Amino acid sequence: MSRFWSKATLRCEPYVPGEQLNQPGIIKLNTNENPYPPSPAVVRAIEKEAANSLNLYPSPTADQLKKRIADLHGLKKEQVFVGNGSDEVLAFSFMAFFDPDKTIRFPDISYSFYPVYARLFNIPFETVPLQEDFTIPKEAFFQSQGGVIFPNPNAPTSIYLELDFIEEIAAQNPHQVVIIDEAYIDFASESAVRLVQDYENILVIQTMSKSKSLAGLRVGYALGNEDLISGLTRIKDSFNSYTLDRLAIAGAEAAFQATDYYADMTEKVKTTREWTISALNQRGFTVLPSQTNFIFTTHETIPAEELYERLKESGILIRYFNKPRIENYVRITIGTDEEMQQLFHQLDQIIK
Amino acid sequence: MSRFWSKATLRCEPYVPGEQLNQPGIIKLNTNENPYPPSPAVVRAIEKEAANSLNLYPSPTADQLKKRIADLHGLKKEQVFVGNGSDEVLAFSFMAFFDPDKTIRFPDISYSFYPVYARLFNIPFETVPLQEDFTIPKEAFFQSQGGVIFPNPNAPTSIYLELDFIEEIAAQNPHQVVIIDEAYIDFASESAVRLVQDYENILVIQTMSKSKSLAGLRVGYALGNEDLISGLTRIKDSFNSYTLDRLAIAGAEAAFQATDYYADMTEKVKTTREWTISALNQRGFTVLPSQTNFIFTTHETIPAEELYERLKESGILIRYFNKPRIENYVRITIGTDEEMQQLFHQLDQIIK
Repeated sequence: MSRFWSKATLRCEPYVPGEQLNQPGIIKLNTNENPYPPSPAVVRAIEKEAANSLNLYPSPTADQLKKRIADLHGLKKEQVFVGNGSDEVLAFSFMAFFDPDKTIRFPDISYSFYPVYARLFNIPFETVPLQEDFTIPKEAFFQSQGGVIFPNPNAPTSIYLELDFIEEIAAQNPHQVVIIDEAYIDFASESAVRLVQDYENILVIQTMSKSKSLAGLRVGYALGNEDLISGLTRIKDSFNSYTLDRLAIAGAEAAFQATDYYADMTEKVKTTREWTISALNQRGFTVLPSQTNFIFTTHETIPAEELYERLKESGILIRYFNKPRIENYVRITIGTDEEMQQLFHQLDQIIK
Repeated sequence: MSRFWSKATLRCEPYVPGEQLNQPGIIKLNTNENPYPPSPAVVRAIEKEAANSLNLYPSPTADQLKKRIADLHGLKKEQVFVGNGSDEVLAFSFMAFFDPDKTIRFPDISYSFYPVYARLFNIPFETVPLQEDFTIPKEAFFQSQGGVIFPNPNAPTSIYLELDFIEEIAAQNPHQVVIIDEAYIDFASESAVRLVQDYENILVIQTMSKSKSLAGLRVGYALGNEDLISGLTRIKDSFNSYTLDRLAIAGAEAAFQATDYYADMTEKVKTTREWTISALNQRGFTVLPSQTNFIFTTHETIPAEELYERLKESGILIRYFNKPRIENYVRITIGTDEEMQQLFHQLDQIIK
């Protein structure tokens, strides 16, 4: 506390990201990073850019990158916004579309950054309880006062919501923005991007941190109708002209060209996910149906917190949220096959 | 305009950065970039980091980089905040220390992003007219209601304010934060950082974009007492956990070690600045006393706008602000000796 702090500084309750222990030998299954490196073409593009023009500002509009993303999704460049990770894109979206006099809605179990943004920007919110099976009750999101936001697939539950549900939610909120946070969509079935042309109130947010193996580069983006995108651009241009540095722009452009590389890698993660789920089931775990690069699971006898602590002691980091309804679940990122085998080696010690 | 925009989106008036024409052969003297490349050690550090761990999130605290900056300034790590360019650090500072019910003050001729931030965050402001000679009238900054911000040296005037003036302004605003935006300080005499230990309300903001030749990398930082820094950290951690990517952190760390390289480069820019000023004086220009890597100048007969337009036609970009009091001035970045010779070659055509 300080007498110099603004009301916003006093009011906010900062987000706490997953532990970033950089001890050698640790197995990091706690922040949903991809265990595989980005395409070699990304590294080459960054190296080339580093040797060239770092003394000059980046493009404030990053038009070339926007064009590439637009082409991949059958959209126009004016329907794409890019930012410094999807967290920044989310922050700008809260500023651009939500207001302090209108209550927004999100699930009670969801990305825990949403209430943090809401408090920072003084936006009232109500949380909608997920159903018993942790699925999203769509009707509860109809006729919101100020807007709706949820991840799809949801985090940390890993559960995917079908697009016809999302379509209904958008139709039932015709005057509010409905934000679909698709951080994990490449590990799931279809993206809501195809609804963007029909629903001018749907904003889809994606990231390169997970499926593109670029958590260290900080690139996220939003897709939506031109009015929504120009709203985001107004906020960004009132905040920081150049949110993406030259290296991030160059690396991101290269990643979007390496489609075969990333398709193979995503398949690999999904294959590992499937055998991991079977192996967990065999050991008395219940696993929620995952369409992400992580799984959310609970064991029939060992408490989740104990699992988290004991795995940590043996050098394996997973994520435990000490929160109502999910206090007996852990979130485990899908690593390489080898890392998962080491996980099971340790789990077998703990369970026996 | 869109019915989905928030009040903030409707209210804001985005900043317009200098033109980023990427035509080959153009001479860019319009955005105060450094004409020289960063230290080769910076490029090597980035290349090394790019080949290593881009799939993992960066350090959310960037402690190692903060420690290095702290050591350079004789401060503790807890007195340093780092961000995605000094523009982001400024935006966070407006959020962290200024409030919608208290009027802040900045000069009428100054960095034109300040009113943009103020409008975005709904912070009332009053502008203090610079004196006839474009210097800052210190008494006018005493007893502000909500806080004070100004660049030192000021931009676009290039004029440096002595530290005893700043000390008085800080002493006369004991309950408000006084932000000194030192984007150009390495081309000037002493930084206000040495006041930070004595004045808990002084926040100094610096950037790597100018004197470190890293405009393309987006790294800025703030120096102040621990309470101010923890206020900034609260805001940042409520906005985006990882504002600096791995490459920016690695490059910035390397740059702060290459002290000899950057000392030589800064001397070179200052030497070019001095002969440029003399050469302009000889041609009927009046040049304000510059302690920056740019000069602010007016010609006795040729209108500033005409100078800007005619130089642009010949492939030389300078900056022209069509604003009261400075509508007959242009801002010219100090380029290489060769670039400045080409500038004079063109100026001689225009003036003759």
